[in-house]
Amino acid sequence: MTESTPYGVHSEVGRLRKVLVCAPGLAHRRLTPTNADDLLFDDVMWVENAQRDHADFVNKLRERGVEVVELHELLEQTMALPDAKAWLLDRKIVPNEVGLGLVDDTRAFLDSLTPRELAVYLIGGLATSDLPADFRSGYVALARESTGVREYLMPPLPNTLYTRDTTCWLYGGVTLNPLYWPARHDETLLMKAIYQFHPDFAGATVWWGDPEKDWGLATFEGGDVMPVGNGVVLVGMSERTSRQAITQVAKALFDQGAAERVVVAGMPKLRAAMHLDTVFTFADRDVATLYPAIVDGIHSFSLRPSDNAHGIECTDEGDRKFVDVVAESLNLKELRVIETGGDVYQSERQQWDSGNNAVALEPGKVFTYDRNTLTNTLLRKAGIEVITIVGAELGRGRGGGHCMTCPLIRDAVTF
Amino acid sequence: MTESTPYGVHSEVGRLRKVLVCAPGLAHRRLTPTNADDLLFDDVMWVENAQRDHADFVNKLRERGVEVVELHELLEQTMALPDAKAWLLDRKIVPNEVGLGLVDDTRAFLDSLTPRELAVYLIGGLATSDLPADFRSGYVALARESTGVREYLMPPLPNTLYTRDTTCWLYGGVTLNPLYWPARHDETLLMKAIYQFHPDFAGATVWWGDPEKDWGLATFEGGDVMPVGNGVVLVGMSERTSRQAITQVAKALFDQGAAERVVVAGMPKLRAAMHLDTVFTFADRDVATLYPAIVDGIHSFSLRPSDNAHGIECTDEGDRKFVDVVAESLNLKELRVIETGGDVYQSERQQWDSGNNAVALEPGKVFTYDRNTLTNTLLRKAGIEVITIVGAELGRGRGGGHCMTCPLIRDAVTF
Amino acid sequence: MTESTPYGVHSEVGRLRKVLVCAPGLAHRRLTPTNADDLLFDDVMWVENAQRDHADFVNKLRERGVEVVELHELLEQTMALPDAKAWLLDRKIVPNEVGLGLVDDTRAFLDSLTPRELAVYLIGGLATSDLPADFRSGYVALARESTGVREYLMPPLPNTLYTRDTTCWLYGGVTLNPLYWPARHDETLLMKAIYQFHPDFAGATVWWGDPEKDWGLATFEGGDVMPVGNGVVLVGMSERTSRQAITQVAKALFDQGAAERVVVAGMPKLRAAMHLDTVFTFADRDVATLYPAIVDGIHSFSLRPSDNAHGIECTDEGDRKFVDVVAESLNLKELRVIETGGDVYQSERQQWDSGNNAVALEPGKVFTYDRNTLTNTLLRKAGIEVITIVGAELGRGRGGGHCMTCPLIRDAVTF
Amino acid sequence: MTESTPYGVHSEVGRLRKVLVCAPGLAHRRLTPTNADDLLFDDVMWVENAQRDHADFVNKLRERGVEVVELHELLEQTMALPDAKAWLLDRKIVPNEVGLGLVDDTRAFLDSLTPRELAVYLIGGLATSDLPADFRSGYVALARESTGVREYLMPPLPNTLYTRDTTCWLYGGVTLNPLYWPARHDETLLMKAIYQFHPDFAGATVWWGDPEKDWGLATFEGGDVMPVGNGVVLVGMSERTSRQAITQVAKALFDQGAAERVVVAGMPKLRAAMHLDTVFTFADRDVATLYPAIVDGIHSFSLRPSDNAHGIECTDEGDRKFVDVVAESLNLKELRVIETGGDVYQSERQQWDSGNNAVALEPGKVFTYDRNTLTNTLLRKAGIEVITIVGAELGRGRGGGHCMTCPLIRDAVTF
Repeated sequence: MTESTPYGVHSEVGRLRKVLVCAPGLAHRRLTPTNADDLLFDDVMWVENAQRDHADFVNKLRERGVEVVELHELLEQTMALPDAKAWLLDRKIVPNEVGLGLVDDTRAFLDSLTPRELAVYLIGGLATSDLPADFRSGYVALARESTGVREYLMPPLPNTLYTRDTTCWLYGGVTLNPLYWPARHDETLLMKAIYQFHPDFAGATVWWGDPEKDWGLATFEGGDVMPVGNGVVLVGMSERTSRQAITQVAKALFDQGAAERVVVAGMPKLRAAMHLDTVFTFADRDVATLYPAIVDGIHSFSLRPSDNAHGIECTDEGDRKFVDVVAESLNLKELRVIETGGDVYQSERQQWDSGNNAVALEPGKVFTYDRNTLTNTLLRKAGIEVITIVGAELGRGRGGGHCMTCPLIRDAVTF
Repeated sequence: MTESTPYGVHSEVGRLRKVLVCAPGLAHRRLTPTNADDLLFDDVMWVENAQRDHADFVNKLRERGVEVVELHELLEQTMALPDAKAWLLDRKIVPNEVGLGLVDDTRAFLDSLTPRELAVYLIGGLATSDLPADFRSGYVALARESTGVREYLMPPLPNTLYTRDTTCWLYGGVTLNPLYWPARHDETLLMKAIYQFHPDFAGATVWWGDPEKDWGLATFEGGDVMPVGNGVVLVGMSERTSRQAITQVAKALFDQGAAERVVVAGMPKLRAAMHLDTVFTFADRDVATLYPAIVDGIHSFSLRPSDNAHGIECTDEGDRKFVDVVAESLNLKELRVIETGGDVYQSERQQWDSGNNAVALEPGKVFTYDRNTLTNTLLRKAGIEVITIVGAELGRGRGGGHCMTCPLIRDAVTF
Repeated sequence: MTESTPYGVHSEVGRLRKVLVCAPGLAHRRLTPTNADDLLFDDVMWVENAQRDHADFVNKLRERGVEVVELHELLEQTMALPDAKAWLLDRKIVPNEVGLGLVDDTRAFLDSLTPRELAVYLIGGLATSDLPADFRSGYVALARESTGVREYLMPPLPNTLYTRDTTCWLYGGVTLNPLYWPARHDETLLMKAIYQFHPDFAGATVWWGDPEKDWGLATFEGGDVMPVGNGVVLVGMSERTSRQAITQVAKALFDQGAAERVVVAGMPKLRAAMHLDTVFTFADRDVATLYPAIVDGIHSFSLRPSDNAHGIECTDEGDRKFVDVVAESLNLKELRVIETGGDVYQSERQQWDSGNNAVALEPGKVFTYDRNTLTNTLLRKAGIEVITIVGAELGRGRGGGHCMTCPLIRDAVTF
Repeated sequence: MTESTPYGVHSEVGRLRKVLVCAPGLAHRRLTPTNADDLLFDDVMWVENAQRDHADFVNKLRERGVEVVELHELLEQTMALPDAKAWLLDRKIVPNEVGLGLVDDTRAFLDSLTPRELAVYLIGGLATSDLPADFRSGYVALARESTGVREYLMPPLPNTLYTRDTTCWLYGGVTLNPLYWPARHDETLLMKAIYQFHPDFAGATVWWGDPEKDWGLATFEGGDVMPVGNGVVLVGMSERTSRQAITQVAKALFDQGAAERVVVAGMPKLRAAMHLDTVFTFADRDVATLYPAIVDGIHSFSLRPSDNAHGIECTDEGDRKFVDVVAESLNLKELRVIETGGDVYQSERQQWDSGNNAVALEPGKVFTYDRNTLTNTLLRKAGIEVITIVGAELGRGRGGGHCMTCPLIRDAVTF
């Protein structure tokens, strides 16, 4: 890494300058009611419309001066580099994944493709029926009799739509996250190929994580992670993000001088509380939008550097409210809170529809889905500028603007 | 491995001489309706009675001349060896599993135990509440707020009861199987420690598999695997056992001259069809008990050695009935079939209660659960001697005598 | 009933002249991820947009000369009649539903409303929180502690959106259907109030059904029912529509000279096969769109009038294909079939998204959802005019244009 | 009813003199993993062993001087009365249940049976395959193609095992309960036939309930109901027992002078909290065994007679603990509590296995399942005599001794 690399995310609401997204595509075309559970996506979406609405989101970002990079494009550029292509296919097209007897044919087929075509299959998955007849000397029949993800030569990765989860820029470096579900692990492998070979990312500092290692119970997803500034990182401890990973990341950040405190939000055990950013995001320097029915149940801990044997110490924040712990960590007198709007029915509906999953363009300007009109109105009344994304299709996978963006460069704010 | 090792399983029904079982214990005491899904066990059993009935099964085996070894005992003997203990704890007590800040205390506590106590926790799991107060300098509070298996310092392994799955003796060597569920992977690690360090197993030939590697989609469970003799191995291709693994195992067997044909039973995609041995087992040299509602839906393939690039070739058996393919592979004119007994309700009930999950003592003598009285009567009428196991508690995890036994030495039969 | 009543549905594709729909509204505003199962709706929709898209559907119908009546409006007009209002509230506001101690207050509150407000609550449900403070002398606290539908004073009826199910015009008369789920029974009670008291429906012939009786296992839903013409009615025998009801309806039709044959489509037992019209609808006199993966599994029977004791006789059509039985019943040489479009993934997706749930305006002109572009293209290539409905929100309850319409007047076609 | 009838239950722990049970049988033989959900039973049990263990329970009751009557026998005696048989078959063998075209044959077959055979089918259900060939002139093929309970001519009633639910003797009279699930409604119809026609029950006072009426949301199950004495009745308000029913029963009891107070236990919304008696039962005059993890979440209300329009008034007991409300209602200084035994895992396991579902023989003597050894030990240490029932099979439907008994005569205790 050179010192000149500009990448870094120094807050949750400072000016967003560069961001990574991933357009919907082939992986979503393969989703059906039958396989959606196996492929870890909540519903079936109309892909063309999802693409239109995602493109509109990208345009709105670009019109407002944000540089947007898209995963298919980054991967295409990376796959145009022979070394990168060989590195990635050497790891993907192996007997454990493709099946003995299909490795050579699959590799030959993929090697025959343009970088763009290859990127599309790497993200969208490769079905046996995609393999042309003259590449089928092997045991294709066995694959066709197989179930779930084993049916594919490369399984589809529909959750690439949520670039937030896979890697996290935390201040001046990045984590390559071991995701919770095995079926999502290859998302991080694609990102490693990009970080390692794509010239735009040359020299990026990796704080922690490597998709080529087995992390066991140490799983970490970006939807739970927020570098809020003031040397603080918030991390949700959830079904997806475990204490085994959080403590390792904290130590890595402390050891490398990247942060001074990690506030752990112990999430209630509920489906609706999947990631911290499904119930709590920032809208301004001192303003958060949150879903109180869940956030009120958060049990907080603080991790700080220590001279002890483990390098970190853990403080149980006990009965203190999560928002109070966050405010104190940022030297704020108080965090202003905008709750999910409406009555008990409406607020539960809007949380479900990513109503609290805002992503900030700059302090006081956020993107949210159009459908959460009540929460959007409350944000506007509180002085926040709300720019809407059409959520009819994009929201069906249960993720909003925050989930769909992986900030690469974002300014700090002062506290 | 020395040539003198006597281990080897040369058929499904030849004289059983030595077998590995695992008594119910601490892991099952921890099962509750809330965590049973996470810990991958179907129900909550009365552990004392399950232990009594398991001991009775062991006694019946011993009375009939079978040498029975028990996993807690093997592991205790192995943990008495300092090298083996260090090897295993170096792999189990790591930040990815135990959590940073708890590694040293947990290791110190485990090091303070007797080999027996250690073996009990290795199989039964270690909860934070098991850690004595003076071993709790670390972040125990974080663990207590965690969910599912992450709550434990070592997760319980209740499926050790089913020793069949973890390792398979196939003729003169063994496979160390990568199991389907990540929560079961450590079962194979325990077995590797035993095979590597326990003097009784010195020199055992390992055909395939290593729990220290990541096998991706290549998963393999012994409930799907049957070394039926005549150089043939039957393998169910199921949710749990994938083509990615089957083809690798076939090649390893062919390359080492251990087998000449693998018959793949492509299982229908049903919960009741979890493993091949839940619907099909042998009761005599040419007699099988099976559940026709599922076995009739099996699509068969044959794998054989080849000079081609992959070393194996695959024949689609098309519309041929599975029992006909099996009979032909064994040079039998016909496989005599004893179907699950009773009307449509009764046969479905008995399959569910492991009615077809027989394990043979010798040709024509099998163990089954007592509760499947109709199928047992049919077996007896066909001349099979049926010795019963009390299944009231043992059967609640949905496995029978075949699942609970891992044959180590079994004679061949002639065809 | 007078002979002059114009109501009657004489085919599935003849000119549609008058139709009943129900706009989304309050009932859907109350749906949350938590209560959606109890209230029998698949998902949470954006009600404002669903209303917009439903209004657009209504406009498209009206522009094409169809008279559209809307359930809230019909009910408002009915509730403006004192006798009708008393009749309905006497049946709805009873201790068994509202709870003792809340009957008088709830009735007093409802009596204080305008007919429009009353209609909105009758369809949308009445929560305890809707009851103004001065109407709360009773045991409101008990209701607030209750679960599921018992929480309400009148449960919401979100499936009123699918007017197809509740009542069916079959040639010159109507059935008042006993629906499968108890939580939907009151939908039919609202319809009975309208048929009994609304002057537009004076004298309508009711072939069968009465929501004031308990029908036990005899359940019948209009999504399974098609008066295709030529004296034939198709009925899906499904989870929702039982043989107990089908045979009674057949006899009622035969006895009153309304039909000569009922073709029963015995549906496979699958969630996707909920109603016959989710997998099979007509697009023209001799053209049907269907999902072959399910329709191929239909087992057909024919019911015809008989002199026997039961008044009907039943012919098992055995292995004959359903489409062949239908064609023969209509004296067609062949039914032209347009299958759900695309590959195996796409066709399953489109069936799920109501791709085969077309409703005809007249022969060769149908309404379908916009999202099923592949099936819509196939219909168009076959010469069918396809008018699209925006399905982003409306489709979330798993019903399409056919489900959302209850034809009141439709012309015959000749065969 | 004559004054001479001795029936009446005047406490939960006074001397039990006469009790109704129902042996396992044909209904349980029909349960399979596939239909168990539809038939509302949790698991598949070994019927012969369940029968043995149930007989042992009955013997233990009889040895201790309790008169035990069994449902098959009562029903057999009732069906021997021509009027009773006609009355019941007129209500069961109707087109809505059996299906048009099968009514006459089914009735003819049932009329040809002995009273014992008839009783067995009434409880165990009648499958189409039970109908002899010469009684099959009707549409049997339609029935065979049907799903779930619609497949039967009379659906099986496996929950008759839990006689507690169907009817409740509350002091000097009985309620005929409208059960929650439609598939259980006919259990109460069988009981009405017995109460109406069996000479032993001539003149019994029915406080409330009639299975021939539709009770809508007013559902009531005896597992939630306890006539504890001192004019008090405890009622769990649960998924199964609704406020709509509780308030009606309270009014009926108050109006007829049968009780002075109903304490309503508002149950938390959890599967484990199905009925009040799954988490709380009495073991002595002032001793209860309970599962604190759920009982601590109970919200209590008291209903008392009133001069107001509804005849009852409702007091919200607010934050008062349920056990304190119960103690006060019985004029006890304190209710002694024996919690489910063991650590957090063990107590959850034992609650699940009906560990708190004790039924008293007399003050201080209770029956419980053998498997809950820890809770049984705690009861014994507290001076309670515990007589055990073998629960290996009987417990699989998730009900214990309290659920399996419907006391007909039980003495009062003094407070």
